[in-house]
Amino acid sequence: MTALRIGIAGFGTVGGAVARLLLRDADRLAARAGGPLHIARVAVRDLAKPRSVALPAGCVGADALALALDPTLDIVVEVMGGLEPARSVALAALQRGAHFVTANKQLLAAHGAELAAAAGRGGGAVHCEAAVAGAIPIVRAVSHALAGDRVVGVAGIVNGTTNYILTQMGRHGVDFGTALAGARELGYAEADPTNDIGGHDAAAKLAVLAGIAFQCELQTQDVYTEGIADITQADVVAARELGFCIKLLAVARRQGTGLQARVHPALVPLSHPLAGVHDAYNAVLVEAEAAGALMFYGRGAGAEPTASAVLANLVDAAQDIRRGIGGRIEQPLQRVPLIDIGDVESRFCLSVGVADQPGVLGAIATVLGQHGVSVASMFQKGRSAEPIDLVFLTHTVRERQMRAALHAIVALPMVRRIAHVLRVADIGGGP
Amino acid sequence: MTALRIGIAGFGTVGGAVARLLLRDADRLAARAGGPLHIARVAVRDLAKPRSVALPAGCVGADALALALDPTLDIVVEVMGGLEPARSVALAALQRGAHFVTANKQLLAAHGAELAAAAGRGGGAVHCEAAVAGAIPIVRAVSHALAGDRVVGVAGIVNGTTNYILTQMGRHGVDFGTALAGARELGYAEADPTNDIGGHDAAAKLAVLAGIAFQCELQTQDVYTEGIADITQADVVAARELGFCIKLLAVARRQGTGLQARVHPALVPLSHPLAGVHDAYNAVLVEAEAAGALMFYGRGAGAEPTASAVLANLVDAAQDIRRGIGGRIEQPLQRVPLIDIGDVESRFCLSVGVADQPGVLGAIATVLGQHGVSVASMFQKGRSAEPIDLVFLTHTVRERQMRAALHAIVALPMVRRIAHVLRVADIGGGP
Repeated sequence: MTALRIGIAGFGTVGGAVARLLLRDADRLAARAGGPLHIARVAVRDLAKPRSVALPAGCVGADALALALDPTLDIVVEVMGGLEPARSVALAALQRGAHFVTANKQLLAAHGAELAAAAGRGGGAVHCEAAVAGAIPIVRAVSHALAGDRVVGVAGIVNGTTNYILTQMGRHGVDFGTALAGARELGYAEADPTNDIGGHDAAAKLAVLAGIAFQCELQTQDVYTEGIADITQADVVAARELGFCIKLLAVARRQGTGLQARVHPALVPLSHPLAGVHDAYNAVLVEAEAAGALMFYGRGAGAEPTASAVLANLVDAAQDIRRGIGGRIEQPLQRVPLIDIGDVESRFCLSVGVADQPGVLGAIATVLGQHGVSVASMFQKGRSAEPIDLVFLTHTVRERQMRAALHAIVALPMVRRIAHVLRVADIGGGP
Repeated sequence: MTALRIGIAGFGTVGGAVARLLLRDADRLAARAGGPLHIARVAVRDLAKPRSVALPAGCVGADALALALDPTLDIVVEVMGGLEPARSVALAALQRGAHFVTANKQLLAAHGAELAAAAGRGGGAVHCEAAVAGAIPIVRAVSHALAGDRVVGVAGIVNGTTNYILTQMGRHGVDFGTALAGARELGYAEADPTNDIGGHDAAAKLAVLAGIAFQCELQTQDVYTEGIADITQADVVAARELGFCIKLLAVARRQGTGLQARVHPALVPLSHPLAGVHDAYNAVLVEAEAAGALMFYGRGAGAEPTASAVLANLVDAAQDIRRGIGGRIEQPLQRVPLIDIGDVESRFCLSVGVADQPGVLGAIATVLGQHGVSVASMFQKGRSAEPIDLVFLTHTVRERQMRAALHAIVALPMVRRIAHVLRVADIGGGP
């Protein structure tokens, strides 16, 4: 069969790994794809930079947009990252009917609906397995494996940097700063870690994943986002004493006709499979009506795992092209009403630092009760020095009520501080 | 669009769940499948039995083979189980070009290559996600998600009955018989549990899964199989003291140009994600060259989870039919040389009951050394009563050498018994 001509826009570590594997495994990939996959054109940022992969002569240029517009290319792979020129490259490729493979979560979280529309008009398709959780085939799972089922919720550990930090704090007793420094040393954290630590990277991935799982249009800014910068070693220790670990969870869940979409630290029971996701590993738990809870676990980042997902999408695209079809038949994306975080129901773990004097528990419990917050259990941490911490585990309550109660608790004269307030993860799939 | 006509052969709990969900979620499934999915014909074993699902009038019959031959049916779903008439139904449907969806691991493990060939000739396809690990989309993962990668090995907990029994023994300190009785009460174990306990159910699933992952022809009898009937409460306790739990693993792994395929109990480190797979849950770990270790976790059995996988395959088949194509383009199945269990390399945990007398350790260590078995660590369990157990953890050694060493150890005069010999799982993906 004739070869399919592939253009690769961007040639950093992921692009290099994709090219290397395409060349090394050419025969096996050709058998899977129904014919050879030929690297016809590559766009790099710096033509002068030496490359570790020996590319076919004359295929390297600097103009990614010209590559995307090249009518001889059947498939365009975008591994540049960022919004521009990635968006222009995507639209140029899709408008002329090419298949578009991308690992760019930012692009999809900001312009996913626009790209899907362009693919629909052009007759190609967007393939984006590599954009969420690296090699973990979670996009395929929620779009195809559960196509006959109804997804109720997804809850994932989708940021390796924060999971590494929280794992180090939990298992090795180090504080946040030390753990962050360790993540930097291992290359898990960037020089400016704000995007990871603040939960924004996880929010972009959730926007892409939830958009596909619930077939709706969702952008990063639609996701309620809290990071882990305020999590202390004391929080981690207190959580473990209660039988939990702390994870940064990205959660999307149906609520009535609307959708919750949120990223925040949460308490996960130590016996739950998500608690066993350590270091830079990622995992996504999917709950579906008939299937029940499914979990998908693996490396969420790195050049090789990301390249594995890109190659799987290249095989998908090649098979689609050989069959003369533009992607699978999908429903159009719908706008879905987003649930305000105030209307989300959770159980909470609340730790209040108080003066050691009679009546303090009664006063706090009364305030909680006045706001409809029902206490499941309470215990006192130490009595050695003030403030002593009273730890409350609540029953399920609407977040708006919890916040109002906190506001009133802070105003009590014997309350010194709110040590922490953490949501308890509401997930199935445990033992 | 015109409706696709579906025939369902077999109407037990899975068939009933498939029909119920097809009727209940008709609109959503039609949108996913590109048109309505219509239950045109159902074959039941007993026409007189009352049904909980209200089927369209006149569609119920007793002849599954007649259903498969009905030229008006686009898709035939087989949820009868067993070898015959399931095989005849499959061949009849595939030979006339229909798409065939099955949850029947036994059928695939015995006749998978024959069915694939019939699908190739007829122009339809075999869809078998439901045959391995219920709702867990592991068939899709190894066939599509890793299509651009190279699978090195799979290791799975794929039998819920044995995992429930081992979990109960490990977490609640009960003995094998009590745990088995509990599994029967919960409906996890059949009246005759031999197929589960003996590892044969897991072997059939491994044959199907490894056949797809390594694109080779593999049957149940090709899989080296040991069950869990000999695992004692003492073994479980000893394993935990060493930092392991005992799981019944189904393992297939490339070795040179050949393939290992084996089912046996194995020691899994407590920190590994597979150790967190409790009760009747299933999980499969897949190791691929670029992706690294991926794990897929969920309910491995039950009517609803199995129906979820069947419905996903129905959507796949419907999309394929609407596009006018017979399944994906796949390589033909190849015969692959199977590695004899004697040539498999593992680390072993060996517990030897000995008389409490000087020189016994030296004698055993000498025999191990003579057979090329290198000891990583040794400890003695208790000294209260004879025989006392000496526990050895070995370095990696070829199984043939280990067996020869055991043969010689049993012949030593001071050795009373081999308490147990267990392989240590050789799996990636841990912390």
